[in-house]
Amino acid sequence: MNLILFEAGEVGSPLALTDPRAIHLLRVLKRRKGDLFDAGIVNGPRGKGTVAAIGPEALVIRFEPAAEPPPPDPIHLLIALPRPQTARKILNEAASLGVASLRFFRSEKGESGYAASTLWSTPEWRRHLLDGAAQAFDTRLPDVRHDAGLAASIAALPAGCPRIGLDNYEAARRLRPVPGAPPVALAFGPERGWSADERAILREAGFELAHLGPRVLRTETAVVAAVAIIKAGA
Amino acid sequence: MNLILFEAGEVGSPLALTDPRAIHLLRVLKRRKGDLFDAGIVNGPRGKGTVAAIGPEALVIRFEPAAEPPPPDPIHLLIALPRPQTARKILNEAASLGVASLRFFRSEKGESGYAASTLWSTPEWRRHLLDGAAQAFDTRLPDVRHDAGLAASIAALPAGCPRIGLDNYEAARRLRPVPGAPPVALAFGPERGWSADERAILREAGFELAHLGPRVLRTETAVVAAVAIIKAGA
Repeated sequence: MNLILFEAGEVGSPLALTDPRAIHLLRVLKRRKGDLFDAGIVNGPRGKGTVAAIGPEALVIRFEPAAEPPPPDPIHLLIALPRPQTARKILNEAASLGVASLRFFRSEKGESGYAASTLWSTPEWRRHLLDGAAQAFDTRLPDVRHDAGLAASIAALPAGCPRIGLDNYEAARRLRPVPGAPPVALAFGPERGWSADERAILREAGFELAHLGPRVLRTETAVVAAVAIIKAGA
Repeated sequence: MNLILFEAGEVGSPLALTDPRAIHLLRVLKRRKGDLFDAGIVNGPRGKGTVAAIGPEALVIRFEPAAEPPPPDPIHLLIALPRPQTARKILNEAASLGVASLRFFRSEKGESGYAASTLWSTPEWRRHLLDGAAQAFDTRLPDVRHDAGLAASIAALPAGCPRIGLDNYEAARRLRPVPGAPPVALAFGPERGWSADERAILREAGFELAHLGPRVLRTETAVVAAVAIIKAGA
């Protein structure tokens, strides 16, 4: 937790001593009354927090905004809905690397049961975004959406955004940085690979296929690798 | 487990039904007597395994070698010894991405207690390498060593290998792919950053400093990002 993030409505309200942020402030950062810490408002400014008071059950926090963080890189990830344990890592990593959006779609070779996970039916998914953003000293969370299928995810992309589909089997070229790091959409298939229909949808929608080399990587590794390569063109 | 890996001495010996590989073969891959599976010998050939017999307590496995996997990419990682949970992820990711070696060194701002973890005092560390290699259908494990300090790790590098130190604070340029992906050594500091002495050692040893952008990444994320960028030059 490099940055302690608060929701816009939370500043000025008591922060229960059982809240993980209060525990982190008092036990890990060892802050006492009057001490400062790096803080931010979710999707808002960064600044300095102050431990204004420590009561028997809650802290009182003050927040002094400094500056808005820069806008996120215009990288849009389309990801076949993975098993929850993989999705947790992707949410965290994508927020720490800083991308504009993640769209999870139901893929033909994916398992439909993944959508029923408590990861998605509770606020847990958002906590992984907060952890990733805080790691990177950012307040901005990627926009996360769920779509019924690949075509629906593609239809929601910003117009004119270049499109690359990661594919170990049918891609003719390696993913490389694009100088200037322009906007880009990156599509990742399920563990068991794209279906023939999905490859046809990608090609028809103007996706160029690219690979990350001959090795079979886990989806969360491929996401970090691909986003890092795209950002290396900045 | 995309590839079931055996030590050279294990083939032909009974494989206990309680061994994770036996459980994976029977329960996940649902292999029966006479069935084939993708297999390999650690640091040796890949090939096809056969379930020759299923006894009450053990399997008998046959192995038919096919080809040696390609040599690892000549990427050498020097990593400030991190907390065990981070080291587990790095061992797995580095083996799945495929690098030649990892050297963990004691850094000035690191915690010396990390070296006492059961990760390192038991064979656990090697299991993470095996898992990462199997994910990538590879049999080769990176060479893993521990050094007393950064200077000792540098002294053990192959001669003439270009050297890059990852540094969020003092690097003047971004890490970019090098066309042809020549041999390279990449050095990663501890969570709390390089000390002034360590930066001096890096510069004196001919390390160029490079960064991965302004965001503060966890070490395991930085390792995947940096290796992916270097490999993008292949």
